[in-house]
Amino acid sequence: MAFTSNVFETRTITLADHEETIVAGGRHLFPLLPRAFEGISRIGVIGWSSQGPAQARNLRESLEGSDIRVTVGLREGSASMKEAEAVGFTKSDGTLGEMYSVIHESDMSLLLISDAAFAENYRRIFDAFRPGATLGLSHGFLLSHLQAIGEDFPKNINVIAVCPKGMGPSVRRLYEQGREVNGAGINCSFAVHRDIDGRATDYALAWAVGLGSPYTFETTLESEYKSDIFGERGILLGAVHGIAESLYTRFVDKGEPKDEAFINSAESITGPISKTISRSGLKAVYEELEENERAAFRRAYNAAYHPCREILEEIYDDVASGNEVRSVIQATRRHGRYPLGRIDGTDMWQVGEKVRADSARNYAPLHAETAGVYLACMMAQVDLLSDRGHPYSEIANESIIEAVDSLNPYMDYKGVSHMVDNCSTTARLGARKWASRFDYILKQLAYTAIDEDRVSDETPFDAFETSRIHEVLAVCAELRPSVDISVVPARG
Amino acid sequence: MAFTSNVFETRTITLADHEETIVAGGRHLFPLLPRAFEGISRIGVIGWSSQGPAQARNLRESLEGSDIRVTVGLREGSASMKEAEAVGFTKSDGTLGEMYSVIHESDMSLLLISDAAFAENYRRIFDAFRPGATLGLSHGFLLSHLQAIGEDFPKNINVIAVCPKGMGPSVRRLYEQGREVNGAGINCSFAVHRDIDGRATDYALAWAVGLGSPYTFETTLESEYKSDIFGERGILLGAVHGIAESLYTRFVDKGEPKDEAFINSAESITGPISKTISRSGLKAVYEELEENERAAFRRAYNAAYHPCREILEEIYDDVASGNEVRSVIQATRRHGRYPLGRIDGTDMWQVGEKVRADSARNYAPLHAETAGVYLACMMAQVDLLSDRGHPYSEIANESIIEAVDSLNPYMDYKGVSHMVDNCSTTARLGARKWASRFDYILKQLAYTAIDEDRVSDETPFDAFETSRIHEVLAVCAELRPSVDISVVPARG
Repeated sequence: MAFTSNVFETRTITLADHEETIVAGGRHLFPLLPRAFEGISRIGVIGWSSQGPAQARNLRESLEGSDIRVTVGLREGSASMKEAEAVGFTKSDGTLGEMYSVIHESDMSLLLISDAAFAENYRRIFDAFRPGATLGLSHGFLLSHLQAIGEDFPKNINVIAVCPKGMGPSVRRLYEQGREVNGAGINCSFAVHRDIDGRATDYALAWAVGLGSPYTFETTLESEYKSDIFGERGILLGAVHGIAESLYTRFVDKGEPKDEAFINSAESITGPISKTISRSGLKAVYEELEENERAAFRRAYNAAYHPCREILEEIYDDVASGNEVRSVIQATRRHGRYPLGRIDGTDMWQVGEKVRADSARNYAPLHAETAGVYLACMMAQVDLLSDRGHPYSEIANESIIEAVDSLNPYMDYKGVSHMVDNCSTTARLGARKWASRFDYILKQLAYTAIDEDRVSDETPFDAFETSRIHEVLAVCAELRPSVDISVVPARG
Repeated sequence: MAFTSNVFETRTITLADHEETIVAGGRHLFPLLPRAFEGISRIGVIGWSSQGPAQARNLRESLEGSDIRVTVGLREGSASMKEAEAVGFTKSDGTLGEMYSVIHESDMSLLLISDAAFAENYRRIFDAFRPGATLGLSHGFLLSHLQAIGEDFPKNINVIAVCPKGMGPSVRRLYEQGREVNGAGINCSFAVHRDIDGRATDYALAWAVGLGSPYTFETTLESEYKSDIFGERGILLGAVHGIAESLYTRFVDKGEPKDEAFINSAESITGPISKTISRSGLKAVYEELEENERAAFRRAYNAAYHPCREILEEIYDDVASGNEVRSVIQATRRHGRYPLGRIDGTDMWQVGEKVRADSARNYAPLHAETAGVYLACMMAQVDLLSDRGHPYSEIANESIIEAVDSLNPYMDYKGVSHMVDNCSTTARLGARKWASRFDYILKQLAYTAIDEDRVSDETPFDAFETSRIHEVLAVCAELRPSVDISVVPARG
């Protein structure tokens, strides 16, 4: 993918056998933002769930000293009004208002509301845009929904997307850490879906740079929603939930005390396995194991790769065919009667709460079998996205970097079950739906093969060793400073 | 639903607050078959998986002495040719042939091939029908698939369906038992989708009577495929698999020895719970419990009803929107690379094999908690189908009678996992997909509520006691003789 900018310097990077054009970010670029946002004097940030607070605050801070004003728009009477006011968006100074008015008065509006709210109100939202304005999205769900119902975006506005490869709180937290370490932040993809005035690319890049994105790469809205909705059902949420459950049950069944089983499964993934990948890449996980543990890793990897890949292929097909988005819309219609239940009441997560309450906890091992299963699933996702033609930047960010630098650290801090119970409705539905599938297929096919000593196919691990994703990840790592994300939110 | 027949006597039965027209079957009606099949001298039975052998043999036997010949049509080179020959369909006497030739030479062809083969070959199949011939289906999958791809059946042929509410081996086995007890058999629904000559209704009724259907009721192809694909994902296969898994794990976790846990979960359902429902209805299960066990039943019922209903609502929406059929087609395209794996290697089913190998086994108790969960799910399915406007005959047969009189007895004989591993591809996919969802939601919402003594809503059980399904079932029971299906196939 190649693009040009009138404002930002672009770079061409080589990721395996592909070249991609990117913009490397950093605070030193903030002075360029007014020029990149030329024609825009008011930015509306619509919605206050995960991305809203982070993006509104980051943009406001990045644009300090310019004439561009960031205004938050919410439903009339929204309970989030108070939270927005608490961080300085107020009705009195005109930086907080009713969402449709804010959209109408803004030159660019970032729609960060829930998917269900989108699906329900998209006509009224479109009507609120002035001709020539810019509509911004942070993931591709709306395109997928419009396609499913045979509709389209208005023709007289720009349609762009900037999609942070991490949850809102990470987007904010790393931006804050960027005050000390220039360039710390969450990578973003961007897509220009409709460009009516030749400015859409620079608007998107400025938005990404303003969020603190260390490196910004191009995609399409379609590629984005497929990899995004797929990814959260896969390794980011659904698979990690299912893998942790299946391993916990397995370890308990083998006689481990429950707290130990929890530490060896969920805690090992969100702790040492993720940290090792984040700091040193995927292969380092294997290399840091003792010799006899390496055999256990390889066995688990070879046994788990194809079962995980089978479920991932099913997820991708369901996302690409529109099934998954239709299911989400149908589910939200049932929520009046059957609101989403919590997953955290089961034995495993109750045990986990106790384990995690231990303040001295920091002792989870790099568990060989757990690491083998987890990395097999992560690589199955990488391989699938590569086979389906996604750009490497998207693959690396959506399958690895977002997991180990955004989601898993929060899961380590708050618990996997808390994460699953508190993400977006689309993600919560997907995580519930697919976690159990990963659990069952691992139990039925992978663990039985390990226990019966039937794991003879070593091609998955051989392919892992020679995969080009390792080079890709190394290039990606150079594009941003190494910062251990601190998950406890800072003040201010 | 009301219909008229030129040949068979119809009856109007009252099922709760609805009247339905039916035909009561029996061997004494076989002499009417030639008149009902007027214009048909050759019937092709296409396919030899579950329904094929049963329907071909039953029809041949019912039409003995008439001029109507039953011919089996299979793919050229099909491995099933031998099996068909073993029961007397031979090339030499012209009752066995290549499927497209058989379709072309028959006046009526019953398409009993796999859904995937349908989806792949429907154009060539349609082309093989002579104008004025009759196309018969035994479930509605093909209609759903044609709708999804915007196609239709040919306009110049009759399109009818006769759908036995039991698997093929039961259709055969009960027909054989019908030699001793007139009227024993598997109930059938029928649908006339296109009637080009005014004879379609009698063709369908003759087909059903010839299969040995004790009572035959009307539906539509659309209502049939929804309830059918939904039902096998629900209580017939997916739910019973998931409920058994979740209860087994629960009982083991509470300290029961594994063999006991298996007996109290899977064996209790497929044995005494099913037998009690079959003989004496749903309420009898509760009434046969001791006083203190009744409390456990009510608690389990009240805790499990809504979680099961939630998953069932999702299944129904996915079936009705075409998602589920699209997923099946997508899955069969992946089977070259990822053939369906077996479920029977896990600990639970291995324990089960040992338990079931015990020849003295017949000691599973009517376990109160297991019964409460199972009946709650069954009733959730009944209530949902009723809310969605399905006729009571269809509801009772698709949710209760098919389970307790066809599938569960076979599961009791061969094992739940064997059943799930050996049913149709569409059903296997559905059972795998949804079993894990029932397991997870019961674990997350129902069992936590029971263990934390939070089950306070007693409306589900109250509604069970006053449900009109009990009257419906009583009427259905009168329409067929009470025969304990023997699952060991008879010879001849």
